Amino acid sequence: MRAAIILAAGQGTRMKSAMPKVMHRIAGRPMINHLIAACETVFERIIVVAGPGMPELQKAVAPHASVVQAERLGTGHAARMAAPLLEGFTGDVAVLYGDNPLVSPATLERLVAARDAADLVLLAMRPADPAKYGRVVQDGAGAVERIVEWADASEAERAIGLCNAGVVCAAWPDLSRWLAGLRNENRQGEFYLTDVVGAARAEGRRSHAVEAPEAELRGINSRVELAAAEAEVQAQLRAAAMLGGATLTLPETVCLAWDTKLGRDVVVEPHVVFAPGVTVEEGVTIRAFSHLEQCVVRRGAIIGPYARLRPGTEVGEEAHVGNFVELKAASLGRGAKANHLSYLGDVTIGAGSNIGAGTITCNYDGVNKHRTVIGAGAFIGSDTALVAPVRVGDRALVAAGSVVTEDVPDDALAVARGRQVNKPGRGFKGK
Amino acid sequence: MRAAIILAAGQGTRMKSAMPKVMHRIAGRPMINHLIAACETVFERIIVVAGPGMPELQKAVAPHASVVQAERLGTGHAARMAAPLLEGFTGDVAVLYGDNPLVSPATLERLVAARDAADLVLLAMRPADPAKYGRVVQDGAGAVERIVEWADASEAERAIGLCNAGVVCAAWPDLSRWLAGLRNENRQGEFYLTDVVGAARAEGRRSHAVEAPEAELRGINSRVELAAAEAEVQAQLRAAAMLGGATLTLPETVCLAWDTKLGRDVVVEPHVVFAPGVTVEEGVTIRAFSHLEQCVVRRGAIIGPYARLRPGTEVGEEAHVGNFVELKAASLGRGAKANHLSYLGDVTIGAGSNIGAGTITCNYDGVNKHRTVIGAGAFIGSDTALVAPVRVGDRALVAAGSVVTEDVPDDALAVARGRQVNKPGRGFKGK
Amino acid sequence: MRAAIILAAGQGTRMKSAMPKVMHRIAGRPMINHLIAACETVFERIIVVAGPGMPELQKAVAPHASVVQAERLGTGHAARMAAPLLEGFTGDVAVLYGDNPLVSPATLERLVAARDAADLVLLAMRPADPAKYGRVVQDGAGAVERIVEWADASEAERAIGLCNAGVVCAAWPDLSRWLAGLRNENRQGEFYLTDVVGAARAEGRRSHAVEAPEAELRGINSRVELAAAEAEVQAQLRAAAMLGGATLTLPETVCLAWDTKLGRDVVVEPHVVFAPGVTVEEGVTIRAFSHLEQCVVRRGAIIGPYARLRPGTEVGEEAHVGNFVELKAASLGRGAKANHLSYLGDVTIGAGSNIGAGTITCNYDGVNKHRTVIGAGAFIGSDTALVAPVRVGDRALVAAGSVVTEDVPDDALAVARGRQVNKPGRGFKGK
Repeated sequence: MRAAIILAAGQGTRMKSAMPKVMHRIAGRPMINHLIAACETVFERIIVVAGPGMPELQKAVAPHASVVQAERLGTGHAARMAAPLLEGFTGDVAVLYGDNPLVSPATLERLVAARDAADLVLLAMRPADPAKYGRVVQDGAGAVERIVEWADASEAERAIGLCNAGVVCAAWPDLSRWLAGLRNENRQGEFYLTDVVGAARAEGRRSHAVEAPEAELRGINSRVELAAAEAEVQAQLRAAAMLGGATLTLPETVCLAWDTKLGRDVVVEPHVVFAPGVTVEEGVTIRAFSHLEQCVVRRGAIIGPYARLRPGTEVGEEAHVGNFVELKAASLGRGAKANHLSYLGDVTIGAGSNIGAGTITCNYDGVNKHRTVIGAGAFIGSDTALVAPVRVGDRALVAAGSVVTEDVPDDALAVARGRQVNKPGRGFKGK
Repeated sequence: MRAAIILAAGQGTRMKSAMPKVMHRIAGRPMINHLIAACETVFERIIVVAGPGMPELQKAVAPHASVVQAERLGTGHAARMAAPLLEGFTGDVAVLYGDNPLVSPATLERLVAARDAADLVLLAMRPADPAKYGRVVQDGAGAVERIVEWADASEAERAIGLCNAGVVCAAWPDLSRWLAGLRNENRQGEFYLTDVVGAARAEGRRSHAVEAPEAELRGINSRVELAAAEAEVQAQLRAAAMLGGATLTLPETVCLAWDTKLGRDVVVEPHVVFAPGVTVEEGVTIRAFSHLEQCVVRRGAIIGPYARLRPGTEVGEEAHVGNFVELKAASLGRGAKANHLSYLGDVTIGAGSNIGAGTITCNYDGVNKHRTVIGAGAFIGSDTALVAPVRVGDRALVAAGSVVTEDVPDDALAVARGRQVNKPGRGFKGK
Repeated sequence: MRAAIILAAGQGTRMKSAMPKVMHRIAGRPMINHLIAACETVFERIIVVAGPGMPELQKAVAPHASVVQAERLGTGHAARMAAPLLEGFTGDVAVLYGDNPLVSPATLERLVAARDAADLVLLAMRPADPAKYGRVVQDGAGAVERIVEWADASEAERAIGLCNAGVVCAAWPDLSRWLAGLRNENRQGEFYLTDVVGAARAEGRRSHAVEAPEAELRGINSRVELAAAEAEVQAQLRAAAMLGGATLTLPETVCLAWDTKLGRDVVVEPHVVFAPGVTVEEGVTIRAFSHLEQCVVRRGAIIGPYARLRPGTEVGEEAHVGNFVELKAASLGRGAKANHLSYLGDVTIGAGSNIGAGTITCNYDGVNKHRTVIGAGAFIGSDTALVAPVRVGDRALVAAGSVVTEDVPDDALAVARGRQVNKPGRGFKGK
């Protein structure tokens, strides 16, 4: 049984945001949830330390437990907040940072595995620019002697490339004792988590550093760093999609979500955005400038360009959704087509039906939403308004330009438009 | 009192353009105006030297003065063109280049400040690839001895990293005398501005080089270099927006203008273009594929995806503008909604009104534009045409599919559409 | 007379695709066709070696000959497949790779030119990361002694930077004899083309390596490598467009096709996609988020933002096509305007006509497509449906909101819509 304490109490001043820092999103998911997902692969229990007044954070991490650090007294103090929930716990506990969300499951595995050989394990990295990170001082045998802060480091120590990432892991009986003994006699008056290294050493216990890639351990403190993390995650997601058999013509112009599923031989043209919750089956083409969110696209369908698929939409096999078409809670049957300038909301469309250009489902009366049902093999003429609730039958034909307010039976033709009058000599004289 | 002479007479052959080189835009503004904006922070007078037949340039730089260099006789000759306008001027004068528009105000400050210690000040840079730039030869004390052109330079001189950027600054009585004495006994038969360094030295005057970042001093001679400058300015604008508290999910896909204003907690999704003149207040979300130009978006509004806001538009607080919606000279009241496939031009929409999908304001009769006014709390049914000039009252309801040609009183229902007829057995038999 | 044999039989397992590897597209064209286009500049005959069950490949390379390698017995075996088609051929033959499609005509020129001084010529490269490429071992005089595979290479040989790209060129009587003599006594049981180097050497013949840039010789084995090749070709196409006099504001966001033609002073705003077959004349502006395919845009026209030009479209001089407008097989006369939310398919529009917002051509009756013809100087009111086949005359005026089902004579006004009725007190009471 292992537990992770995730420190997430900081508001993140440099983000300049009314939202808690760890709630900012990467690939469509709050950064805290990225870290939790990684932790769930290794730790059976997860406890998040939130700041005061962050109910949205506590909600986002549920069902995992969360505690509130009411006062900002440092990382060591924050970690201590989890203690009441870990009473009697004897397994290993790691302390991680919510604004450090890209730690991989593999790294977490190595962190906890290293406990076999050391009482306290740290994560460390070798940043391209070590700057003012604390340095990890090791003895000849590779054990960690101490962490020396940059400000206190000698020239020789500053020359050390291995830097402290702040993550620690130890058996909870040890770690909780070391945390309880931390002192705040420093300039900031804070309790530093890093000081557990000294506490362990004072007891003659062995500390070990596990190295991990800098990219996994960089903190996110500003929106510039947030964008850098987004770029990194997007690069990973795009590569995984391509290696899985999807073509991304210009990958840098495709925005994926953390959970986007693309089948084999899916082609994604440039400038496509996937919000969370999208599944695209084999052989689908997503054309340029399309936007998909919480929807399913069945095999062989063609989407876009300029198609917007909103939540609750399912596009059937071989169906076509074309330009400037918005689907919302729409179900398109196999081979159905809606190729031009249409709003299709709260609608079911049968197999093989053709929806003309400029078709609008009037699904909202200002108070409630109503559903439109179109049968199979129907033909909705262009520039038609379907005033829901309404049903258009199988093989029905609606004349172009109609406003359909009543059901249309199977096999019937509906016409609902004004008659044309031509008035000679009254043509366009303007300009 | 200080003056800047900006040389902008070159047509820019390598641009292959009918437009003067310095009129090509960066971040939505002609490059000459970028340089003028920087100069305005340091110089009280600005004189632009245009080429013949460039009235659009002379207009773009107004109210600053401009003179025409009728013959192409070199940079020294071009600078001399400003002399008639500087008669009797005794302050410092800097000579800059219109196709070198990214010089920062800070660099210009340092340029003029350096005049305290030298009679002539140059801007210099250390390019990553010094290539064939002229080298700045300094004496042991750091004074500039001379500029040696690459073609004339010895191996030792070519090894010098400090390169001449061509910008000079001196007291006008000195500079004008040196300019007047320039000779064109060279292969090109041109008068070179750089030769003022020799002129100053011949009088025993002290020259000094101020180093500035290469990125500020690179010239723009082709559209490839124009794109590189654009990329650089965009990177600066994006970073500034993010550090100011806006999230740019994929910054490289967002095109900002030089004057874009984004409030705190604005979220800009991927693939958004800001033309000049846009102000976005706090907490607004600009969704993917939106295009904004000369408009104001009030706090908490949601724009897009695929929304186009054209000049003269103001979107009220908490209002929503959705996909495939074009607003032009449109004013949306607080909480109003226009979410789908609409053209709303020359229109005022009251607070809380809902504009259905496919609504079109018919604002143009081929000769004049007319205005549509919609009251507060109104509901415009989908697929409606509003033939302006027309007024729809407060809390009015327009039935879906209507063509509204007459005013609709407050609290009234308007219906203006054909009646539906169903014809059994005449359904769709095609294919 | 020279011939090229292009090996293209591999399915490309790592592509994870149902499509033959060389049929995947770069800049809108199958990679095999890129290589063929380069070869056509140097080789009079081209023979493609396809795998079994690749009729689409054989079709794509026509009218060039293709043969099928039924069994996968190695590159040497594949090259031999071409022998029946080269019976009696005495000229030079090069063997190239279909998944190596970026070899430039200049490199091919150098390859065949080098035959003057050597019996067998290879292409070689100096990759940034030579990894496990075979190394080219040369003697003191620069002749190729042998190719040593990485697995068999000594440390000294692995230190050689020059790597084998696999391409060979020799007189066909020699090459065919060497190919015929290849043996497959190796671990894979395959016949390796590279072994012709040893065969030539065994006959005391001289081999020579021609170096070419790595970028031209990298193979494409996965969709990640496909995207890298796409990026490289896009960078070339964008640079060529800019050097030719087109402005690409943010070039990385513009997707060009291999055959896109952009005139001088064309401005391409960010986020534009060109599918194949597009010609844009001088002075045209293509605004953001536009998508063009198989169409011609005449000088001075303005396209977009959000315009989609589909195949068969021609936009006349100074015409305007605006946002959310789709044109398909549409011809717009000089100065015509269609600026907002329209579907214009199978339509001819006369000079100077104005197409209102929300205009829809109803060109499809479910079975056939029909044509709409609009004269010159006509004005189509907004939100109009034109039910084809239909003709609207010169200077005709169609009232907003009409459904036009009958021809409108020249100079006539057509009205085809319901009459408006206002019902007091029945306004919007919702929410």
